[in-house]
Amino acid sequence: MNLELIMQLIEQKNYPKLKQELENVRPVDIAHIFEELNERDTLLVFRLLPKGIAAEVFSYLSTEKQAELSTLVDEKELSDILDELFFDDKIDYLEEMPANVVKKILKNTSEMERKLINQFLMYPDYSAGSLMTIEFVDLKKEMYVKDAFARIRGIAPDKETIYTCYAIDEERHLEGTVTLRSIVLSDDNVKIEDIMQKDPIYVNTHDDQEYVADIFKKYDLLAVPVVDNEKRLVGIITIDDVVDVMEEEATEDFYRMAAVQPSEESYLDTGVLTLARKRIVWLLVLMISSTLTGFVIQRYELALKSVVALATFIPMLMDTGGNAGSQASTVVIRGLVLGEISVRDVLKVVWKEARIAFIAGVLLAIINFIRVYTIQGYSLPVSLTVSVTIVLTVVVAKIVGGILPIIAQKLRLDPAMMASPLITTIVDTTTLTIYFALAVWIIGITV
Amino acid sequence: MNLELIMQLIEQKNYPKLKQELENVRPVDIAHIFEELNERDTLLVFRLLPKGIAAEVFSYLSTEKQAELSTLVDEKELSDILDELFFDDKIDYLEEMPANVVKKILKNTSEMERKLINQFLMYPDYSAGSLMTIEFVDLKKEMYVKDAFARIRGIAPDKETIYTCYAIDEERHLEGTVTLRSIVLSDDNVKIEDIMQKDPIYVNTHDDQEYVADIFKKYDLLAVPVVDNEKRLVGIITIDDVVDVMEEEATEDFYRMAAVQPSEESYLDTGVLTLARKRIVWLLVLMISSTLTGFVIQRYELALKSVVALATFIPMLMDTGGNAGSQASTVVIRGLVLGEISVRDVLKVVWKEARIAFIAGVLLAIINFIRVYTIQGYSLPVSLTVSVTIVLTVVVAKIVGGILPIIAQKLRLDPAMMASPLITTIVDTTTLTIYFALAVWIIGITV
Repeated sequence: MNLELIMQLIEQKNYPKLKQELENVRPVDIAHIFEELNERDTLLVFRLLPKGIAAEVFSYLSTEKQAELSTLVDEKELSDILDELFFDDKIDYLEEMPANVVKKILKNTSEMERKLINQFLMYPDYSAGSLMTIEFVDLKKEMYVKDAFARIRGIAPDKETIYTCYAIDEERHLEGTVTLRSIVLSDDNVKIEDIMQKDPIYVNTHDDQEYVADIFKKYDLLAVPVVDNEKRLVGIITIDDVVDVMEEEATEDFYRMAAVQPSEESYLDTGVLTLARKRIVWLLVLMISSTLTGFVIQRYELALKSVVALATFIPMLMDTGGNAGSQASTVVIRGLVLGEISVRDVLKVVWKEARIAFIAGVLLAIINFIRVYTIQGYSLPVSLTVSVTIVLTVVVAKIVGGILPIIAQKLRLDPAMMASPLITTIVDTTTLTIYFALAVWIIGITV
Repeated sequence: MNLELIMQLIEQKNYPKLKQELENVRPVDIAHIFEELNERDTLLVFRLLPKGIAAEVFSYLSTEKQAELSTLVDEKELSDILDELFFDDKIDYLEEMPANVVKKILKNTSEMERKLINQFLMYPDYSAGSLMTIEFVDLKKEMYVKDAFARIRGIAPDKETIYTCYAIDEERHLEGTVTLRSIVLSDDNVKIEDIMQKDPIYVNTHDDQEYVADIFKKYDLLAVPVVDNEKRLVGIITIDDVVDVMEEEATEDFYRMAAVQPSEESYLDTGVLTLARKRIVWLLVLMISSTLTGFVIQRYELALKSVVALATFIPMLMDTGGNAGSQASTVVIRGLVLGEISVRDVLKVVWKEARIAFIAGVLLAIINFIRVYTIQGYSLPVSLTVSVTIVLTVVVAKIVGGILPIIAQKLRLDPAMMASPLITTIVDTTTLTIYFALAVWIIGITV
């Protein structure tokens, strides 16, 4: 794609040439161009697109751009675009639009479609129901391959995928799935029921999207059928939407682990106040809880006053404890998400982390001792206190970091909450308590 | 699947019944059962599986179990299993096996396949070449749909996907892609070149797997063709392998952001020494760099000695700075990975973070002031010093956290390196410098 040429043609208002050039550009790339255009150009260029392409481009636009275009085109144009959209894209769009736009659109749709749309809009966010589409190929198990194939050819243009088809009975109960591959490979007079997968994998409309993604990953699926509580087939979910879910879920975990409330909007499009709100609550909670660590120092103020050098090592000890703990918690959180670690592995994890911590802690302590005692020239008691604290801190941090995500999982909380910020705050208090207790004992300060 | 029943049958050595039951279990679930079995049962149960199923189960086994089975079966059996594997699974297997096993296997393969295997083993890790498979459907663009369809039916059983086919010329140059959908929808006497996508998306064998995953996400692909430097089609990559790549890449980022060196093995299967090694280097680097923060305290030792209460707030200030910074860096790192933020947005990010930080910082400072001055009863100068430090710290932390990942991206380093641990260490020094400088000025201590 020659983006510069396109932008030049828009600027020159050379619409015939532009129309011709756009024919060679993929819809997703055209959608990217729209994000850069002002209102006037948006409408002008959009109207140059052929109807089918226009709808596809529309489905790739950002929510903001979709909203902008919705106000620019007239009612008839908008309803034409929406008619061309796949049902899941239409629902995604309606979910994001303000109520008055939705009302206007629903006014122009048939009674039947209106009911269906309302039903879809009621599925909870992040549920299988909110992800699915209704454009799938349904077959009867009594059909011969020849007839099934004819049906597929007939209805394929309106279907999101034809590579997996679904056998249903009179009451639309899911009876099996059959791939286009097996249909293509079978003789004309074979019955669908003889080549279908009889005990197919399916999900319920109310299953969480994370569970849906796990099913796709485990069984390498291209699509999965979605059933209601009576096991009637109501839709399918395709892999392209699951890829987006995987990305969303990963983003959510990254955000949680950094004590940021997850958000669906992209960073640059979100207002400063919204972004600030998503961060302040946790900052506040952590600020207040970290004053606990201050109380430890307060308690040992006299010790600190008599050996003020002790304060010099506070940052290093806190950071090392925090880092050691967040290493462990990150590895364990990720293991839980990927299903490599389960709640019953808790003792294995603790034992493993304890040994890792001992090795890492002793090594860090030795290097630290050499530096503090021989290079920086601190006294033996101070050097010893700092070094022994390192070993104990790393051990405590890694065990806490390893165990808390598993406890969260057990309590059905998101393990990602138990990441760096919370671990650091917890470990800090322990670290400084160990440090000052050791100082009093080894250096022999009276408190 | 009734896992308990299966395990019972294995224990009772009821092999006829077991064989029957296993027919109803999906290969990936059978693979999970194997991971729980000892050597003897592994071999016994494996030999109960029909040949085609055995190979599929084998492809789902962990590397450890594959290695175990390879030593248990004889050469003939092993080569039978490998013959049934898709080429990409075979390469994955060979990459993980010790050299003597690989040698034994290559001895039993044809000259041609041996050359091909050696070529594939030479593709760099994490490259498109190392992900691709050779089992794709190639067509000529002059073919009629009727003949293309006949060809697909003939060779489909050995192909990993038939849903996208590839048109090539005499020298195997990629000329276009054509979906089975468009073949099914076209009349018999249409030529492939009239329905193929003429300017198809493709990747090069040396492209990084992250780039490949981005292409899949952007264009919602099920498969992508892989070409060599002469644009000859050498393989394809299918979506199931890309889903695994996406997960691997996310794990890598999570690890990097917690200062752990990425690893491919699962946590529970990895030895303590290996795990320790992946964490020690960064712990050490961060321990040494955080002593810089100690020097700040050392410089202000006299100030600290005269107002020892100042030490009480060190942990809270360090933690708040660290958290504020890692919130910003995580959001920006994720934005860079998802392509929502690019290097040229650096000023937008700084301006946005500065405003977020100001709002968050002022709010935290007010709450902190109320607590420290009115509840804890510290003096006005101390309360003011701590509160003003909070505002400045949050602003510095968020700007540093927002800018460093972008700089890393610009320098072609992984932005994920610029996460919590490194940001914390950098921000700590600034925080304490601001804190003590303000203390000297506001409280008026002589140093």
